[in-house]
Amino acid sequence: MYVVILAGGSGTRFWPLSRRKTPKQLMSVFGGRSMLQRTVERILPLNPEGILVVTNTLQAKETERQLSFVTGDLLTIVEEPLARNTAPAIGLAAEIIASRDPAAVMAVLPADHYIQDEDAFRAALDQARLAAGNMSLVTLGIRPTAPETGYGYIEADLGDGRGGVFPVRRFLEKPRHEKALELVAAGNCFWNSGMFVWRADVIIDRIRTHMPDLYTGLESLRVPPRLREIRTMAHQVEALYETIQAESIDYGVMEKADGVVVIPSSFGWSDVGSWSALPALLEADDCGNVTVDNSQVVTLDSHGCLVLGGEKLVALLGVRDLVVVNTGDAVLVCPRERAQEVKHIVEELAGRGLSGFL
Amino acid sequence: MYVVILAGGSGTRFWPLSRRKTPKQLMSVFGGRSMLQRTVERILPLNPEGILVVTNTLQAKETERQLSFVTGDLLTIVEEPLARNTAPAIGLAAEIIASRDPAAVMAVLPADHYIQDEDAFRAALDQARLAAGNMSLVTLGIRPTAPETGYGYIEADLGDGRGGVFPVRRFLEKPRHEKALELVAAGNCFWNSGMFVWRADVIIDRIRTHMPDLYTGLESLRVPPRLREIRTMAHQVEALYETIQAESIDYGVMEKADGVVVIPSSFGWSDVGSWSALPALLEADDCGNVTVDNSQVVTLDSHGCLVLGGEKLVALLGVRDLVVVNTGDAVLVCPRERAQEVKHIVEELAGRGLSGFL
Repeated sequence: MYVVILAGGSGTRFWPLSRRKTPKQLMSVFGGRSMLQRTVERILPLNPEGILVVTNTLQAKETERQLSFVTGDLLTIVEEPLARNTAPAIGLAAEIIASRDPAAVMAVLPADHYIQDEDAFRAALDQARLAAGNMSLVTLGIRPTAPETGYGYIEADLGDGRGGVFPVRRFLEKPRHEKALELVAAGNCFWNSGMFVWRADVIIDRIRTHMPDLYTGLESLRVPPRLREIRTMAHQVEALYETIQAESIDYGVMEKADGVVVIPSSFGWSDVGSWSALPALLEADDCGNVTVDNSQVVTLDSHGCLVLGGEKLVALLGVRDLVVVNTGDAVLVCPRERAQEVKHIVEELAGRGLSGFL
Repeated sequence: MYVVILAGGSGTRFWPLSRRKTPKQLMSVFGGRSMLQRTVERILPLNPEGILVVTNTLQAKETERQLSFVTGDLLTIVEEPLARNTAPAIGLAAEIIASRDPAAVMAVLPADHYIQDEDAFRAALDQARLAAGNMSLVTLGIRPTAPETGYGYIEADLGDGRGGVFPVRRFLEKPRHEKALELVAAGNCFWNSGMFVWRADVIIDRIRTHMPDLYTGLESLRVPPRLREIRTMAHQVEALYETIQAESIDYGVMEKADGVVVIPSSFGWSDVGSWSALPALLEADDCGNVTVDNSQVVTLDSHGCLVLGGEKLVALLGVRDLVVVNTGDAVLVCPRERAQEVKHIVEELAGRGLSGFL
């Protein structure tokens, strides 16, 4: 099995810690190793044939630096010249893998997700690899533990599965709260983790059917015989990305394709979509305050706050449910429940031309 | 007239900007010159005979540095070895002045107050100087503009005054809100500004009557003939301060003495007692957010906040009425209405032995 890691996120929702050059996947959100490093370490025990990390030009250097611990020719870093969402990134990776072994199974994993139970995660991937050999497009669905409105859902036909693999009826957009309650209660709906497993030739075939323009572009690529020479493709990839449209693999292929199946899983998963996702994943003190990465914090009569202090001391007095993030050059203060809106701060900074903070 | 500036405050309520070595009076709260520098500049047009700045050993060096713009022998810095509240500081200054000219009038001014209308302030001091020549203990009372509970009040006998100078009936402690409403409505009650004017020999005489132990100690001092040699008194002052009790001039003398008068004044005054005092003294943006000292701030849907960013950018999203202060090594976040409690953060830091932040 090959592993394709999507590592090109811009990560504006973790500003001011995440920046253009160091988005979420390159950050040490939980202390120690970055999310990308953890993602790679997590799949090494599966002994993959190869690991392709798809990132963008701005982040390529730091990505390579962080993954220097991967030995031999196992790792290939693929640079995207422009952000075109997941479908082109996955298509490009599939094309590269297919040039070596069309029938190879590839797992597609985001670089910036949290996974608690790594053994259970690898077991699910193993199961998915088998199902993918059967020409299916396999999705990993997460058994919901709460009526999350921040995730898309996958509705399965539980009456028609075997071996823990079930046909997908449909993909559901991020629901409102009432709808989310329904979906969780239904029992056959799972969070869409954005993790997929399939044969390279199968996903290319489905791209041909549902995204013919992308397919034509991909087919014109000439992949070098050695992956270590992947950068010689740069001009071809640039030309391709100039012409193709941005599209997610979900919307471009998965929601339309036949043969999509889901493996319901429970390995303690979060997409860590914003600062507000962290309190559930880190240990809180007696007052429910969560401190990221050993920050030095003094609190008085303060509760439910998330604090990242960097090198600095953070003192909280009489505040509730705030996110306070201090970095070398900026401080963010916002309520936990509005942490998703931090990207608007980044837009505001961009609008004011304060590019040093982006 | 001599001017005595009390500049020995520990300034814990402006943490993390104020520290042991740089308390409020040495800070640039309003941008530019420090409060102490402004206090000195403010009285220079009165052509004082001498300026005595009473400070403590820890702050003496920075105090001297900041006041290096005062030329000639005008300035004398008096170091207190220990904090003993205002009565010993004022007694010591009176003794030094009386050694040169017992009948000299001295104005006692805190180093860390805000004064908007400097001409009106100097006019009030001139008026007080005349009244002090009449052997009175003169207090500057501030006409209240709000039912402040953070100030003490001075009740005057408005029927028995002349030339804007009225006998004081009594001093009132910081009132509760209902009582403060009454006092403001009464019309004869004024905020106690902690600014006093009297003859050196008169205040020494009243100390003799009401604080005999302090008087005995002060009388034993031998003041050097030249003020530039004031440091030769250091051992005597140390010995004195080891034996005397801490006491405020208000409690030790003013509340008990005869011949106390008040000059009701309106020159836009604040004791700037905590971060929460600043919004009223600085210009707010359209959302009521106040930025101290040209800090770089980005706000989205945030109102009524006070921000001091230092060299850093501060981004506020969806927050109300917060104080956010960022300094080189620490960040404070608290509601405006609880800014008085910042001193408890300082206590907590001291308790944990984090002396680097004190």
